[in-house]
Amino acid sequence: MTAAELQAFLTREFTQVADDFAVERADQAGVCLRLRVQDKHLRPGGTVSGPTIFALADVAMYLAILARIGPAALAVTTNCSLDFMRKPAAGVDMLAEARVLKLGRSLAVGDVLLFSQGLNEPVARANLTYSIPPAR
Amino acid sequence: MTAAELQAFLTREFTQVADDFAVERADQAGVCLRLRVQDKHLRPGGTVSGPTIFALADVAMYLAILARIGPAALAVTTNCSLDFMRKPAAGVDMLAEARVLKLGRSLAVGDVLLFSQGLNEPVARANLTYSIPPAR
Amino acid sequence: MTAAELQAFLTREFTQVADDFAVERADQAGVCLRLRVQDKHLRPGGTVSGPTIFALADVAMYLAILARIGPAALAVTTNCSLDFMRKPAAGVDMLAEARVLKLGRSLAVGDVLLFSQGLNEPVARANLTYSIPPAR
Amino acid sequence: MTAAELQAFLTREFTQVADDFAVERADQAGVCLRLRVQDKHLRPGGTVSGPTIFALADVAMYLAILARIGPAALAVTTNCSLDFMRKPAAGVDMLAEARVLKLGRSLAVGDVLLFSQGLNEPVARANLTYSIPPAR
Repeated sequence: MTAAELQAFLTREFTQVADDFAVERADQAGVCLRLRVQDKHLRPGGTVSGPTIFALADVAMYLAILARIGPAALAVTTNCSLDFMRKPAAGVDMLAEARVLKLGRSLAVGDVLLFSQGLNEPVARANLTYSIPPAR
Repeated sequence: MTAAELQAFLTREFTQVADDFAVERADQAGVCLRLRVQDKHLRPGGTVSGPTIFALADVAMYLAILARIGPAALAVTTNCSLDFMRKPAAGVDMLAEARVLKLGRSLAVGDVLLFSQGLNEPVARANLTYSIPPAR
Repeated sequence: MTAAELQAFLTREFTQVADDFAVERADQAGVCLRLRVQDKHLRPGGTVSGPTIFALADVAMYLAILARIGPAALAVTTNCSLDFMRKPAAGVDMLAEARVLKLGRSLAVGDVLLFSQGLNEPVARANLTYSIPPAR
Repeated sequence: MTAAELQAFLTREFTQVADDFAVERADQAGVCLRLRVQDKHLRPGGTVSGPTIFALADVAMYLAILARIGPAALAVTTNCSLDFMRKPAAGVDMLAEARVLKLGRSLAVGDVLLFSQGLNEPVARANLTYSIPPAR
C-alpha cells in the first residue's frame, strides 16, 4: 500500500482519529507518520502526553504492517514496550519512523523511533508485537 | 498517602483527567485505581482503547509510588511495557492493581494488572519504570 | 503435570542443564523453580550473572506453561523483558516464582519474580511471551 | 574508545568471557560485536541459546556505552527486553549491532540487532537500559 492508500484507509476505518495523523512516507524501509499535535494531545506543561505517544507508535506500526500485508488483514497489538527518553518539544508536530523487523505467519514485530519535528534525538522508542489472525 | 489523599492530589494536579479515575484502595500492597469508562475511552467496536489502557496503568503506578514517597516527589515514566492479553469487556469499568516492586533512590519499578470489572482474567499487564529526580 | 513430572521432563529433554534446576512446586498458582547456584553461574564479584537470571526465568515460565498444556507441546520464547532490581545475594540459591497470565491457542503470557533465597525483595522480574505452534 | 581499546578492556575486566567476543567496529554509529560461537553457546538442536543471545546483546550495548563515556565509568543493566524473531543459523558466528539512543546523566538507553553471520534478517532484537551511577 502507498502512503495515499494508507491515509485513505485511516480516514475510512478510524474516522475519529484520522485527522490527527498524516502518512508522510511508506516504502520498503517502513512508514513515517506525522502527529498533528493539538491541545487534546498535551498534558499540563504543554508537552505531548504519554498516551498520545503510545497511540502514535501503535498507529505507525499498524500502518507499516498493513503496507506489507494489505488492508484486508487484521493485526492485534499484543505487546508494546515504550522507552521515554526525552521531553517532547513544545509547539511542534511529532514524527514516527516505524519499521517491520519480522513479518511471520502469525506474528509481526517492529520498532518505532519518535521525534519532535526538527530535533535529531528521539523523544521515545517503541517496540511492538502484533498477532496476525489466520485468514478466513 | 491514603486513598483520599491520592484522590485529592489527582483532582488538584491533574484536573482534566481526575474525573476519569477513582482511587479504590491504597495500602501496603499497592493501589487499586478505577477507570470510569466513558465514550471517549472507547475505540470502534466499543472496547477500551490501547492509549486509555496505557493511561490507566501509568496513573495507577504513579499513585502507587506517590503513596510511598509523598506528593512532593516527582517521578517520570522512563519505560512502560504493556501486554494486551484479552479484549476488555464492553460497558463496564476497568480496575488496575498496581504494586511497587522496587523503590530505589533514583529508580522505581512496579507492575500493574488491569481487569474489566467482574472478570477474573486480566485484560492487560504493564511493567513500568520511573526515574525519581534527586530532591532539591 | 506435577513437580516430579516436570523435573523428569527436564532431566530427559535438557540433560545438560537439568542438574542446575530443581522444581520446588507446581500447582494452579504456577511453578517455583530453584537454581542451584554454582561457580559457573557467577560473574566477577560473585553474584549471579545476567544470562543465568535470564535462563532461570525462561526455564521457570516454560515449565509453568508445560504444567498447563502437557509435555507434548512446544512453546517458543518470543519475548522476554527483564528488570534487574537488586544485586543477588552471594552464596545462596535463587528461586523463581512463575505464573501464567494468559494461555491462548497460539500465545502464552506470564511473569516471573526472582529471589535470592532468604530475601523478601525480588532481585529481578521477567515477563515472557511464548508462541505455541498449532498441534500437528 | 576505539575497537582495540574496547577489546583490551574486555580482556582485562572480563577475562572469562573475553575470548567469546571480538569487537568488530566502534564508531559514532555504535559498536558491532562478534560472538565466536562455540559448543558451550548451543542448546539441543545446535542453535545459539537464549542466555547466550542475552549475553551478546548485553555486552554489545555495555561496550557501546563505554565507547562514549570511557572505561572508568560504571553502568548497570536495569532492563533488557529481547524479541526472538528467527532461529539462529547453525554453524556460524553471530553479530550484534548496538547503538546508543540516549546517554543521560543517570540513564543510558539503546538497542541491539542480532544477526547470524551472512543473513540479512535479524535473529533477535534487544532494548536495554543502564543506570549510570554518579561519579565519585
